[in-house]
Amino acid sequence: MIYLDNAATTFPKPESVYNEVLNCMKNYGANPGRAGHKLALQAGRVIYETRENLCKLFNIRNPMNIIFTYNATDSLNLAIKGFLNSGDHVITTSMEHNSVIRPIKALEKIGVENTIVNCDKYGQLNVEDIKKAIKPNTKLIVTTHASNVCGTLIDIESIGKIAREMGITYLVDAAQTAGVYDIDVEKMNIDMLALPGHKGLLGPQGTGILYIKDGIDLRHLKEGGTGSKSEELTQPHILPDRYESGTPNTPGIAGLNEGVKFILKEGIDKIRKHEEELTEYFIKELEKIESVKIYGPKDVKKQCSVVSINILDEDSSEISYILDSVFDIATRSGLHCAPLAHKTLGTFEQGTVRFSIGYFNTKKDIDKAIQALKVIDSQIK
Amino acid sequence: MIYLDNAATTFPKPESVYNEVLNCMKNYGANPGRAGHKLALQAGRVIYETRENLCKLFNIRNPMNIIFTYNATDSLNLAIKGFLNSGDHVITTSMEHNSVIRPIKALEKIGVENTIVNCDKYGQLNVEDIKKAIKPNTKLIVTTHASNVCGTLIDIESIGKIAREMGITYLVDAAQTAGVYDIDVEKMNIDMLALPGHKGLLGPQGTGILYIKDGIDLRHLKEGGTGSKSEELTQPHILPDRYESGTPNTPGIAGLNEGVKFILKEGIDKIRKHEEELTEYFIKELEKIESVKIYGPKDVKKQCSVVSINILDEDSSEISYILDSVFDIATRSGLHCAPLAHKTLGTFEQGTVRFSIGYFNTKKDIDKAIQALKVIDSQIK
Repeated sequence: MIYLDNAATTFPKPESVYNEVLNCMKNYGANPGRAGHKLALQAGRVIYETRENLCKLFNIRNPMNIIFTYNATDSLNLAIKGFLNSGDHVITTSMEHNSVIRPIKALEKIGVENTIVNCDKYGQLNVEDIKKAIKPNTKLIVTTHASNVCGTLIDIESIGKIAREMGITYLVDAAQTAGVYDIDVEKMNIDMLALPGHKGLLGPQGTGILYIKDGIDLRHLKEGGTGSKSEELTQPHILPDRYESGTPNTPGIAGLNEGVKFILKEGIDKIRKHEEELTEYFIKELEKIESVKIYGPKDVKKQCSVVSINILDEDSSEISYILDSVFDIATRSGLHCAPLAHKTLGTFEQGTVRFSIGYFNTKKDIDKAIQALKVIDSQIK
Repeated sequence: MIYLDNAATTFPKPESVYNEVLNCMKNYGANPGRAGHKLALQAGRVIYETRENLCKLFNIRNPMNIIFTYNATDSLNLAIKGFLNSGDHVITTSMEHNSVIRPIKALEKIGVENTIVNCDKYGQLNVEDIKKAIKPNTKLIVTTHASNVCGTLIDIESIGKIAREMGITYLVDAAQTAGVYDIDVEKMNIDMLALPGHKGLLGPQGTGILYIKDGIDLRHLKEGGTGSKSEELTQPHILPDRYESGTPNTPGIAGLNEGVKFILKEGIDKIRKHEEELTEYFIKELEKIESVKIYGPKDVKKQCSVVSINILDEDSSEISYILDSVFDIATRSGLHCAPLAHKTLGTFEQGTVRFSIGYFNTKKDIDKAIQALKVIDSQIK
């Protein structure tokens, strides 16, 4: 199997991730922060260490500002719905995933206004359009760092600057870039950062992260046991407990810690360079195949390692099916939970066949994908 | 290490649980329900099989009525906050965990009334008191099946009967009993059932379950990508997608599946009988130690395998600390995220030392715990 669905979940993971998930379950599979016994303390220590390592990766000062969640969707819901109130206005883009668009649309019911800024047909955002959309009641800007459909990068640093100048909170969805691109919450004026643990951070599924800057007070969407202030019938105020109710996914977080450690050791530049090289090569070879339409900027300085294509007007799911069943190549077809992005790219009806490259892919994988597409091309014409 | 903190997380797990988590991560660690390739389909199949096996255990008709969540707290928040509206009244008990009490208290702000029915000093509920608390606007009854502090069982079948007669929805928190006690949602008139995957169901942490009976329409607390109806900007209506946004914890659920399969194979009666025998023996031996005060009914027909004690007026955390550091016995001290339960038992100031027995504990473990307490007893007097 050639796995080119890394935008959904990176696969495989570093061996250390598998080993630590198992080590945690077998040797310290207790509840962190609840009891004082050795196993519980070890679980708590590993979770704290994971917060520290995430801080290193994103230049976050205080490990307690890192909230562990179920997935990036969970993080985005907490950030968006915990922050906005009736009468507020939020700005986002047409390239967002449903994990951003659906919570924002749901908030319309309680009187939260939104503006969805359109990107161009390559998925590119004109940052000035964000500025133009600002109204007196704009409280939040939410953008992805890169499209999950065609990889187009958004200039989050420039948006962060605008947000700071205008006193607006900025939430970044880094689902497609965390662990691969340099993200510095201080330098980029990112107030909240939503991350999946199981994509570029190389951790297991069932792990999400939300960084919340000091001074931002979100409504907690859940209440429950936190292991702290147990005597109180209301949710405690301290971070991260305020937003972390119930038993966390300790083995998952322990695995995520190893993923982050792998990235810190390998170096984010090396990881990105490898993905860029493969992406560049893939796009170059794709361009040689007559029936292939490529979406997005076709420039690795303007996009991450997510490439969407179609073959003539063939149904994208049919092509994905052939790639899987005949060539043993895993891709994803359809709308990728981002309908507005497909409207932006002009692919709402057809969907796209998405190839997403990970750090463990090789040039040989790309060659096989190209070879398969050439065979399909030759038979379809 | 003698692990007697199974009420927090069961430890260890069956070997098959470890093996399947690893197998999933290494061999089909893709996104279920998102793409059509082999790995994604296998992930989806395992998740569906887990729903089916949970159905067998709890006599649930339709696997699609099983919602996977992050933990039981997540399930309880969805059930309670997704169900109740301003003007509604909810009844619960004084033995509940903060995962029930805190969401209910949080709902006071939007005008949801509550009645917390007091249990007696053994944690026992008089079911008639639930009946007496019913008002014309009572929409929901929420009770635990067994106290997480002292194990006291609540007669959920009788409450289910009352709830059905009165047309009130009944939500059961089976955090301490699922996988050990027979729970039949049909026979017991349970409309919603909240479960942790990592306790009696023997799965990994990061897994929770909510069963929602057909016809109950909860507000979704989160929106996002569901892999279904991707073209829509609003959350789809179909179950389980409506309540399952974002990538699930596939390895965790795959492990949970093995936990549930282990229970189905072993037989719930055998599991309960083993835990009952050890609990009965433990209580009998505890009663011989002069300085030990035991809380709860001290009767295995009236309690699950959770036993809370104190030694004279010693601080519970001090005793737990000695048990861990001197005797290598893991227990949990303090309030166990259930302050009202401790008020009910009269242990709000002191907390309790909680011993919770799991299926993998042996008589030898209990003997060692008793021996340790005898040493503490002899030195403390």
